[in-house]
Amino acid sequence: MKYSKRVSSMQSSPIRKLASFEESAKKGGVKVYHLNIGQPDIKTPKAFFKAINDFDKQVLEYCSSSGLDDLINSMQKYYNTYNIKFSKDELLVTNGGSEALLFALMAICDPDDNVLVPEPFYTNYFGFGQSINVKINPITTKAENGFHLPSKEDIISKINHNTKAIMISNPSNPSGTVYTYNEIKMLSEIALEYNLWIISDEVYREFVYDNQEYTSFGNIPEIYDRVIIIDSISKRYSACGARIGSIASKNKGFIAQVLKLCQGRLCVSTLDQVGAAKLYETPISYFKEVIAEYEKRRNVLYDELMKVDGVVCEKPSGAFYILAKLPIDDAEDFAIWMLEEFSKNNETVMICPAQGFYATEKLGKNEIRLAYILNEKDLITAAKLLKEGLEEYLSSKIKSFNYKNDELTLN
Amino acid sequence: MKYSKRVSSMQSSPIRKLASFEESAKKGGVKVYHLNIGQPDIKTPKAFFKAINDFDKQVLEYCSSSGLDDLINSMQKYYNTYNIKFSKDELLVTNGGSEALLFALMAICDPDDNVLVPEPFYTNYFGFGQSINVKINPITTKAENGFHLPSKEDIISKINHNTKAIMISNPSNPSGTVYTYNEIKMLSEIALEYNLWIISDEVYREFVYDNQEYTSFGNIPEIYDRVIIIDSISKRYSACGARIGSIASKNKGFIAQVLKLCQGRLCVSTLDQVGAAKLYETPISYFKEVIAEYEKRRNVLYDELMKVDGVVCEKPSGAFYILAKLPIDDAEDFAIWMLEEFSKNNETVMICPAQGFYATEKLGKNEIRLAYILNEKDLITAAKLLKEGLEEYLSSKIKSFNYKNDELTLN
Repeated sequence: MKYSKRVSSMQSSPIRKLASFEESAKKGGVKVYHLNIGQPDIKTPKAFFKAINDFDKQVLEYCSSSGLDDLINSMQKYYNTYNIKFSKDELLVTNGGSEALLFALMAICDPDDNVLVPEPFYTNYFGFGQSINVKINPITTKAENGFHLPSKEDIISKINHNTKAIMISNPSNPSGTVYTYNEIKMLSEIALEYNLWIISDEVYREFVYDNQEYTSFGNIPEIYDRVIIIDSISKRYSACGARIGSIASKNKGFIAQVLKLCQGRLCVSTLDQVGAAKLYETPISYFKEVIAEYEKRRNVLYDELMKVDGVVCEKPSGAFYILAKLPIDDAEDFAIWMLEEFSKNNETVMICPAQGFYATEKLGKNEIRLAYILNEKDLITAAKLLKEGLEEYLSSKIKSFNYKNDELTLN
Repeated sequence: MKYSKRVSSMQSSPIRKLASFEESAKKGGVKVYHLNIGQPDIKTPKAFFKAINDFDKQVLEYCSSSGLDDLINSMQKYYNTYNIKFSKDELLVTNGGSEALLFALMAICDPDDNVLVPEPFYTNYFGFGQSINVKINPITTKAENGFHLPSKEDIISKINHNTKAIMISNPSNPSGTVYTYNEIKMLSEIALEYNLWIISDEVYREFVYDNQEYTSFGNIPEIYDRVIIIDSISKRYSACGARIGSIASKNKGFIAQVLKLCQGRLCVSTLDQVGAAKLYETPISYFKEVIAEYEKRRNVLYDELMKVDGVVCEKPSGAFYILAKLPIDDAEDFAIWMLEEFSKNNETVMICPAQGFYATEKLGKNEIRLAYILNEKDLITAAKLLKEGLEEYLSSKIKSFNYKNDELTLN
């Protein structure tokens, strides 16, 4: 039996590839610290569970396809605190940010259309595109300048007849980059000049450090008719297991298109929505504590990484990721080596090779993404293990190189 | 700004079209009985809510992309009671039956491929197809013979080079038809002879009346390598608001393809899965009571409908729908008339025009779908209202016809 080309051509999750090595390490009695996944350890606010426990209907019915009224109301108020004004019929609840991204792409792109995306990008953008025959058209950014955008001309040169949108995550997963006001303005100008949509994935909106300014595309009035804001409660309120995301746009025609897709899948989990409505009422002050915690963690991890010669990485200002270029050839080989060969006091670290975050072939092969989602104590241990592992890996590579050279001399 | 052709071409939900008329009726103080939607009133088993209330983790984490172990285990046992044997790695949990259908189509069809579907069919099949450029290739069935399948030759004549699968819901939404063993065997033969997949939507598996025999495609061993079984807890356990469905197939290559799509959207709601694991442990005896209740309701509605001259409909044996051909021209006009013009003791009935369940143009224009999901008392009232409404509508049409004829005579 044959499978479709679109899905056959999708790669399996790069994280899954390493799972068997992780299992072997664990079976061998080694404790594995996870810096490879974006699953935060922060407690989910109790209001979420309380609201669900208080649910007292005897029949768990379908909810409206566009979303639970209470949740839409609290989302509206939440955006308002950032001076982003949406009316209720400009908001749709989705099965996580994932479905929001898929539906946005479906509603604006036909097969063989493409969307401009700064690379490295969230790896699933690629998969969503492939599953519906939409291409990712990468705008390459580099570790050397903190993964900030290239010039306007460079970006424009990538646009072709089938380009329908610019898709961007800000703060960025995987790089942690927070785009400046000028960058957001530049992309807005391009969108206006070339009649492109902007799909702005802002699920890490609150995770901005060093008191840096954050600009949402929702705050650029000139492009209100072409901005699509993607959101999710997963990271914001550490509620990844509740699949609650949203699409927001002041383009009501666009919302009407997406609503058809929402009606097709009937509705989003009723109970998760009941809980999420309360999460969005969490006072903004809640984030102060969370952000202080993440900022501390970033510093620990970044400082340790910087102790290794040859590591290239600007200190990222957002999300909870560090994307670093290492003085090695193959980050996947290093990630496997950390699980197979390395341990210190029976402990090691699992990292995520970054090649899967690039569309351009061969890019990212010597880069890794680290998620600082462990508590400070564990993170200090993990950061030190990573530094020691990297040094040992580098010196073993030099030894093996010298050994090979010696062999050559002998023969 | 432009939208994609694929989504622009999707029609809005036919049910939504009537929503404004429903609102007006309600504002006018009229009570509206709903026979238009498949939202059952049966209580969700308490085990679902209990399991969720007992959830005691402080961080609501991502679940595995393939599904929660406990849920997979109970699904496996559930299938076993029907002598359908799946290993754990042949089962994937999805966001409702909707996502299961979409992912199955994605994994086997490329743009411009088509799937054979007996029409009338669940209207969202059409939308799922359009959203990913897959065409529905209808096999027309008729009210006159209870919407059973045409001959093998008729079906084969529809197959072309781009036909990849037969997709069928059994028992059928919207017709309530339960396909016979011979029909299932015939489709299996066609699938083997023409190398087609079978996507079998069996979400109403338990809802079979009159002690009729039910044959799952999971019980036809010859085609184990091409059968994809779609399921959902929505109707089975009256838990529509929990978005839990599944894909099952003994074709492990197919499961590997779909797993990539599952990984892309990360996971399904953790809490809904925790609850659903307990639902699948509900003893099969639970269904006895539920089925007796639905069978009683079907009889009430069917008997009332049969009192009207010219209504064509065989007594359906499954699901909780009746699809009937009425002696009228336009079922949508009748549905609106019931909401706008008709009421008896300030009560009326909302029905679903059936045209949206057909792919072939103009078919179903004089048909309606009724869902018998009200308690017996309400259903008796609703059925009588529908009979009276239909009679009054028919006689008003005759009057208006005579009046127009009189006018013509006078002029």
